Amino acid sequence: MSRKKETYRVVIVGGGFGGLNAARNLNDKNIGVTIIDRQNHHLFQPLLYQVAMGALSPADIASPLRYILRKRKNTKVIMGEVRDFDPENKKVFFDNGEIAYDALVVAAGSTHHYFGNDDWGVRAPGLKTIEDAVIIRSRVLRAFEAAERERDPEAIKSALTFVIVGGGPTGVELAGALREIAADTLKGDFRHVKTEESRIILVEGTGRMLPTYPERLSTRTEDRLRRIGVETRTGCLVTGMSETEVVIRCGADEEVVPARNVIWAAGVKASPLGARLAEVTGAEIDRAGRLVVNNDLTLPGYPDIFVIGDMALCRDDRGEPLPGLAAVARQQGLYIARALKKRVRGKDYKPFRYLDLGSMATIGKAAAVVNFGWLKLAGYIAWLIWLFVHLMYVVEFENRLLVLFQWAWSYVTGNRSARLITDYSKWHVDK
Amino acid sequence: MSRKKETYRVVIVGGGFGGLNAARNLNDKNIGVTIIDRQNHHLFQPLLYQVAMGALSPADIASPLRYILRKRKNTKVIMGEVRDFDPENKKVFFDNGEIAYDALVVAAGSTHHYFGNDDWGVRAPGLKTIEDAVIIRSRVLRAFEAAERERDPEAIKSALTFVIVGGGPTGVELAGALREIAADTLKGDFRHVKTEESRIILVEGTGRMLPTYPERLSTRTEDRLRRIGVETRTGCLVTGMSETEVVIRCGADEEVVPARNVIWAAGVKASPLGARLAEVTGAEIDRAGRLVVNNDLTLPGYPDIFVIGDMALCRDDRGEPLPGLAAVARQQGLYIARALKKRVRGKDYKPFRYLDLGSMATIGKAAAVVNFGWLKLAGYIAWLIWLFVHLMYVVEFENRLLVLFQWAWSYVTGNRSARLITDYSKWHVDK
Repeated sequence: MSRKKETYRVVIVGGGFGGLNAARNLNDKNIGVTIIDRQNHHLFQPLLYQVAMGALSPADIASPLRYILRKRKNTKVIMGEVRDFDPENKKVFFDNGEIAYDALVVAAGSTHHYFGNDDWGVRAPGLKTIEDAVIIRSRVLRAFEAAERERDPEAIKSALTFVIVGGGPTGVELAGALREIAADTLKGDFRHVKTEESRIILVEGTGRMLPTYPERLSTRTEDRLRRIGVETRTGCLVTGMSETEVVIRCGADEEVVPARNVIWAAGVKASPLGARLAEVTGAEIDRAGRLVVNNDLTLPGYPDIFVIGDMALCRDDRGEPLPGLAAVARQQGLYIARALKKRVRGKDYKPFRYLDLGSMATIGKAAAVVNFGWLKLAGYIAWLIWLFVHLMYVVEFENRLLVLFQWAWSYVTGNRSARLITDYSKWHVDK
Repeated sequence: MSRKKETYRVVIVGGGFGGLNAARNLNDKNIGVTIIDRQNHHLFQPLLYQVAMGALSPADIASPLRYILRKRKNTKVIMGEVRDFDPENKKVFFDNGEIAYDALVVAAGSTHHYFGNDDWGVRAPGLKTIEDAVIIRSRVLRAFEAAERERDPEAIKSALTFVIVGGGPTGVELAGALREIAADTLKGDFRHVKTEESRIILVEGTGRMLPTYPERLSTRTEDRLRRIGVETRTGCLVTGMSETEVVIRCGADEEVVPARNVIWAAGVKASPLGARLAEVTGAEIDRAGRLVVNNDLTLPGYPDIFVIGDMALCRDDRGEPLPGLAAVARQQGLYIARALKKRVRGKDYKPFRYLDLGSMATIGKAAAVVNFGWLKLAGYIAWLIWLFVHLMYVVEFENRLLVLFQWAWSYVTGNRSARLITDYSKWHVDK
């Protein structure tokens, strides 16, 4: 790639919240930015469960990276899959080429973690990409279709039993939304099946749902889930699954639940690029595959390599690792952009500090929990706050209006318009 | 399936325009309707090219059949793939069961026709389903991404050359929309590639584009296409294709065009279910796989089997076969519903007559051709008519509002929001 001599070259790997926010804030004509992602779009992941549950279309919450960055003339977007790093020669290798950097920002995010049971992936899809969401949507809707055709009561029961593994925000949101579909949205669409009799079982390994939230909010969440009809199992693990059954172990008890549907929301691990980067830099890596970073988010010994978001193990003032939240990645992206702009001017900059803006999750229709530290809420007001915050953050104005319009409509009518079953098993491998 | 003794059982195969309109109009409590489709949704096909070109999301133009028919308590929807017919015992067999009928309506539509070159299917996808549209969208967008990474001028040119085979309404609409994307929408998104230099070649075998339209409108269409930058080749056939090239033969001349992208809009043939039905009923079948029907749309010798839409060879007063249009299928569906309602009451009914409401197609942005017989128009006014008619026909009110909103937005901003590249090559085969 040609470049002017004076340009400081920043290469960003990953167009999620961290990488995109770094790119957006690197508005400095002395800096040339290249952002590489294997997808062509930035995805607003906090709403991905709504795609999986047929309430939103993929395009409502995803925008092409090129389009978002089209006015940044110092910024290039490459659609490609990064394969390797050469920190000595300051190069990144991707599937269709290589690129040199003066500073590298690695923000490739995380992937599903099956804790050694990777063969569960096919049976129990997780929720990270548009493709994942479309797969889950098709599976869930197909389960109701299968139940409608079935005559054997046991088979119907198994088709209508959904096990969601993991009681963090994603699991809670999926369980609530799934219950809403079964009890509300689909009611009246079927002639044989009573969709409201579907079983939705939410399994959490620790002692309470939303374990990172204050205990009071966990209790409120569990109450609410049970009230809308979700079965909650805390202190329980999924220890096995077959085509038709799921094994749930609670303490010494083991239960075999006839269930054809499993969704995985139990854990994430850093992108495998983290392990590769650790190999070539000697950086320390934790069990979740995260790289231990300095307080300026660089790798020890490599002041030109930053790691942020779900890939970074970054501790707060109390020594606790920062959680894998959009807000963390976004603040780290902004920090790096500012740090690099100072660096090219030869100025100093301070260490990164995370400003905890709180966290929130929905629990079915018109209810949420919100934890701002100074404000802890559960219920309808919390849901309004959730709605407001999420609308404000949906990246593009255009999408925001569409999402708002669509939400308002489905709230009033109870309808979910994107209930499409698609089948891409004959997808041709693209050149 | 249990049934009350007195119920007259109508089984409809296919939930397209014909089958759905039959079901919707069979509102008679003495009639029990079952509609079987392998998809869970009805698709508004006339706008499918807009999904393929990233202007609309799949859910904007598709609705679950169950949802559309949820208030018809005499109607059941089965998601299943019909495999066979037993006209003597009046039964239909599908992948997960069988069903008995008193009257059968076969409306399974059509599929791509590669005229003996079925191996072209992978290379040159056609446009019939949501899945097709998503494949074409990903391919087209991926072509621009590939060109952006490429440095070899020849390879760039080939990546940016799109051959559309077939100059009927679908081909013309695709060519116009693709030109709009290349010249307009994507402009400014890329740093290396000049997307407006893309070549779009529309190849038509007969002497003019839109051969079923009046000649004057064909001329206007070709003028308009050329003016916006589409290369038109009439009287030409695609006779071969490889990974990187397409062979176009015009008369005695053969040209090898370096082009990595081909879209197939050249022809359709009736669903293979037509051939199976012909086998078991001895019905006559034409080269496009259509079944010759009586003037009441039944198969000769089988007054209880109706065939409609793209699967039927039905002639108008002048002996011309009716075209494969939504309007034809829709009118035939309505006709059958009325005929069956009369039949269960022992009343007579008249033969089917097609009321030609005209046809229309868009040519890029804000231009269309309209042929109402008494009114033949090309240009902006025609486009407004096209817009109005299509909005009126989008099945559901909800979708209509969303589509209108989205169109208005993209018309004002020139943006197309659904420009997502997805990759379903790892799609798990569903149980």
